[in-house]
Amino acid sequence: METEKKERTNDNVVFIGEKPFMNYVTAVVMQFTTLGAPEVVIKARGKFIAKAVDIAEVATKRFLENQVKSDNILIDSAEFTNKEGRQVRVSSIEIYLKK
Amino acid sequence: METEKKERTNDNVVFIGEKPFMNYVTAVVMQFTTLGAPEVVIKARGKFIAKAVDIAEVATKRFLENQVKSDNILIDSAEFTNKEGRQVRVSSIEIYLKK
Repeated sequence: METEKKERTNDNVVFIGEKPFMNYVTAVVMQFTTLGAPEVVIKARGKFIAKAVDIAEVATKRFLENQVKSDNILIDSAEFTNKEGRQVRVSSIEIYLKK
Repeated sequence: METEKKERTNDNVVFIGEKPFMNYVTAVVMQFTTLGAPEVVIKARGKFIAKAVDIAEVATKRFLENQVKSDNILIDSAEFTNKEGRQVRVSSIEIYLKK
């Protein structure tokens, strides 16, 4: 039950990673169009942050112009110890897109 | 007169580029501490966006913890024709840090 609920809550979240740029743009656009989501959250960490901003911009300015815009944007970071025993800080971003 | 006013307005803006990471962190922190600015804006374009987020996080979480936090964050993009005659879109970010 808990798992099912969690999955449903995460439906409108797109995590940005190594896949081709347009895969993510399509995923975001389809959430709004095919699936009728009122809000989509684009999340990314570290080096994928710039890619996340690009994806948000292409989705809202080229594909969903005047329909969807970036609403709230949050940044955060977490410090942890890497394999070499060094303290590293990794930043993250959450971009909320809304109809 | 106009120039002088413009320069003063831009005093609390830090543009992120090729320089070493800590140069920008120091610039941001000094705006708040030495210069007593109530707000600092970190701006970046393209590949420097992730670096801008890292700088904001290190400045606010390591150096100015409980004193300064990221307030408003804006993203935008501009389309232009590059040297090869291709249309390219470049994203930008503005991170507003506040006391």
